[in-house]
Amino acid sequence: MSQPARQQAQREQAAARVMARADELAAISETPGALTRVYLSPQHLQANQLVAQWMRQAGMAVWQDSVGNICGRYEGELEGAPAILLGSHLDTVRNAGRYDGMLGVLTAIEVVQALHQQGRRLAKAIEIVGFCDEEGTRFGITLLGSRGLTGTWPASWLAQTDGEGISVSEAMTQAGLDPAQISLAARRQAEIAAYLELHIEQGPCLEQAGLALGVVEAINGARRLNCCFTGEAGHAGTVPMSHRKDALAAAAEWMMQVETMTREHGENLVATVGTLRCAPGAVNVIPGEVSLSLDIRGPHNEPLDALLNALLAQAQAIAARRHMQFRADEFYRIAATPCDSGLQAVLRDAVQTVQGRSLTLPSGAGHDAIAIAERWPVGMLFVRCEGGISHHPAESVTVDDVALGIAAYAAAIGALGESRRGTN
Amino acid sequence: MSQPARQQAQREQAAARVMARADELAAISETPGALTRVYLSPQHLQANQLVAQWMRQAGMAVWQDSVGNICGRYEGELEGAPAILLGSHLDTVRNAGRYDGMLGVLTAIEVVQALHQQGRRLAKAIEIVGFCDEEGTRFGITLLGSRGLTGTWPASWLAQTDGEGISVSEAMTQAGLDPAQISLAARRQAEIAAYLELHIEQGPCLEQAGLALGVVEAINGARRLNCCFTGEAGHAGTVPMSHRKDALAAAAEWMMQVETMTREHGENLVATVGTLRCAPGAVNVIPGEVSLSLDIRGPHNEPLDALLNALLAQAQAIAARRHMQFRADEFYRIAATPCDSGLQAVLRDAVQTVQGRSLTLPSGAGHDAIAIAERWPVGMLFVRCEGGISHHPAESVTVDDVALGIAAYAAAIGALGESRRGTN
Repeated sequence: MSQPARQQAQREQAAARVMARADELAAISETPGALTRVYLSPQHLQANQLVAQWMRQAGMAVWQDSVGNICGRYEGELEGAPAILLGSHLDTVRNAGRYDGMLGVLTAIEVVQALHQQGRRLAKAIEIVGFCDEEGTRFGITLLGSRGLTGTWPASWLAQTDGEGISVSEAMTQAGLDPAQISLAARRQAEIAAYLELHIEQGPCLEQAGLALGVVEAINGARRLNCCFTGEAGHAGTVPMSHRKDALAAAAEWMMQVETMTREHGENLVATVGTLRCAPGAVNVIPGEVSLSLDIRGPHNEPLDALLNALLAQAQAIAARRHMQFRADEFYRIAATPCDSGLQAVLRDAVQTVQGRSLTLPSGAGHDAIAIAERWPVGMLFVRCEGGISHHPAESVTVDDVALGIAAYAAAIGALGESRRGTN
Repeated sequence: MSQPARQQAQREQAAARVMARADELAAISETPGALTRVYLSPQHLQANQLVAQWMRQAGMAVWQDSVGNICGRYEGELEGAPAILLGSHLDTVRNAGRYDGMLGVLTAIEVVQALHQQGRRLAKAIEIVGFCDEEGTRFGITLLGSRGLTGTWPASWLAQTDGEGISVSEAMTQAGLDPAQISLAARRQAEIAAYLELHIEQGPCLEQAGLALGVVEAINGARRLNCCFTGEAGHAGTVPMSHRKDALAAAAEWMMQVETMTREHGENLVATVGTLRCAPGAVNVIPGEVSLSLDIRGPHNEPLDALLNALLAQAQAIAARRHMQFRADEFYRIAATPCDSGLQAVLRDAVQTVQGRSLTLPSGAGHDAIAIAERWPVGMLFVRCEGGISHHPAESVTVDDVALGIAAYAAAIGALGESRRGTN
């Protein structure tokens, strides 16, 4: 067998193993038949042990850190070399899919395992982290695992409680962790050279482009607002069209603008009105008040804020022209996280090699890379998922796409690991 | 005192009496402090007795008919002459205003009382009916009183029950009425020459025009539909604008068309989207399905149906262009009721005389005249109400407007009553 043919066969085996291991992890759930695995649950610790075993088989030194991340290190040519950190999360939403998070950990293990089988070490070490809590399912706070590594757990998190009133602190103790030792999970700046994360896209762009892989330019920033048009309720039969202050008609006009202006703005911006409530809400009464939400996201903060301001100005103008009131309260804001341009270039080269061409796209969903990016350069590789579906049992990837993903991931990690310089 | 001055003083007294009697009737309520008076309740019978007493004082022969309407007749020059029937209703919605319905009965009594004081009889008789149930508050069926006169009670009505499971039939018996005698309330065609009804506008048109009185051209027909756009739910962060099938965006586009096309259509048509529900209905999820109601009304059936068809075609076109589904189910339809052109002319002349100019307008709400129009020519005179408010304790008319209303009503009735010919 020629070397390319052997590599190809090995990657197919690796991809098949990833699929089998994803199934094995999916069986570790608090509810049989529906995958739910939350922070500091028995299933969390059980999944950590299983992943630890696979890391050890791949030649890694393994430890569970003080917040509950499972970590492995494959040493570089020289002991103590700075590491390329490969990560994703092992926790899930309720009734989850089996690839969101897990795919990034399992493919990383395969990359290391291949090096281990070849007896090959890179200039840099490789570390893998299976983050303990990205989704925030249990305590309603997110990125707990990655914020352990960055050392940015707010003190308030320990008192946060789950649905049964158990605090993070109590749950840690029950799981054999010591809340007093959280800061030991933090990594020094110099220990890590770069962070890479492979993840399913959770959107339809790769599928629509007919590509298995894409490179993330940025993780979208987001703002969420509660908005309200206040007009005047009235009898649907007796108030002529010209005398109405119909709050729903005003909202409809604005929603059209939200769609049109966001499309025209381009730059991968998206805006969504996901909820709408109209009062009094009767067939024969003109709506006097309409409450609606606006969720707006984009890969760069400036165009995002520019669009948001333009949309709010538009709403005010519509309300003024219709002699109504408009108000908006922002209740959620997260900054956009740009991916490191050097890491993007390395990933792009790798994707181009294995798939012929690359596609650059934003990440609409949040990831551990958001927290990590506060301290280290981050890069993300997306794998196509069927119908863009995630957070659902129907979440699906193909073994061929996974094989391509492993190949590109390995190529990028190989290139980065041999580079003596930094990432930019 | 000159005769015009004496007439003016009498009308002011009459209007003041109407206001006082409206207050007196408003005190006859099943709930103290909030006016509610429903069909076949003790309050219904009590109100009938009070109105009967006022009718008698105005020189009328009085009877309660077999469905519970209170009726009075002021004979014409010759006994048995065909009557001009003046009516409105004495029942109310829950927590009602005190003029909707009652004003028409009380002003009619004043017109007769003035003739009685002058010892004057017209060629035609005048009858007044205080209808027992127009609103349908108790049994959910409307126009029971007026359909008693037309003889068009469906047999099914007797079995209809109220909120406590009491049937119309049982309630009639409890109120001393005989369900077997309902048909005795029906009037022969030749007994009635014309029907007139004075009513508050329940809309803002007269107030906006700065006029106390207006003449109704027609009682609006109405259609109500449940409509639904079905697109595709999706992640608000990961699905690009160009790939969305946002059901709320489609609904917004249509709602804009509903407003614009209805305004452009003119002809006193109104269209209202009063309820809207979007699913799944989360801030961060693109709406996959939007259910909304359409209420569309107008004084003439043909333009009403033409507009409705155009709006539905527009919805289908929007859905098709967006690769979505649209469906609409009509669940309510009532034909438009045109007012008799001869009666409109008589009322217009009378209004012009007392107020300088007249205004013709449609009635957005339903009235007893809808039922009566099936057998006799009908005409309606509207009196301005504050802010167009009705079905609410804040319902309000001014004593000056009521005085003008009585004057116009008396003039019209005088003209009609002396005419030897029919109404057209």
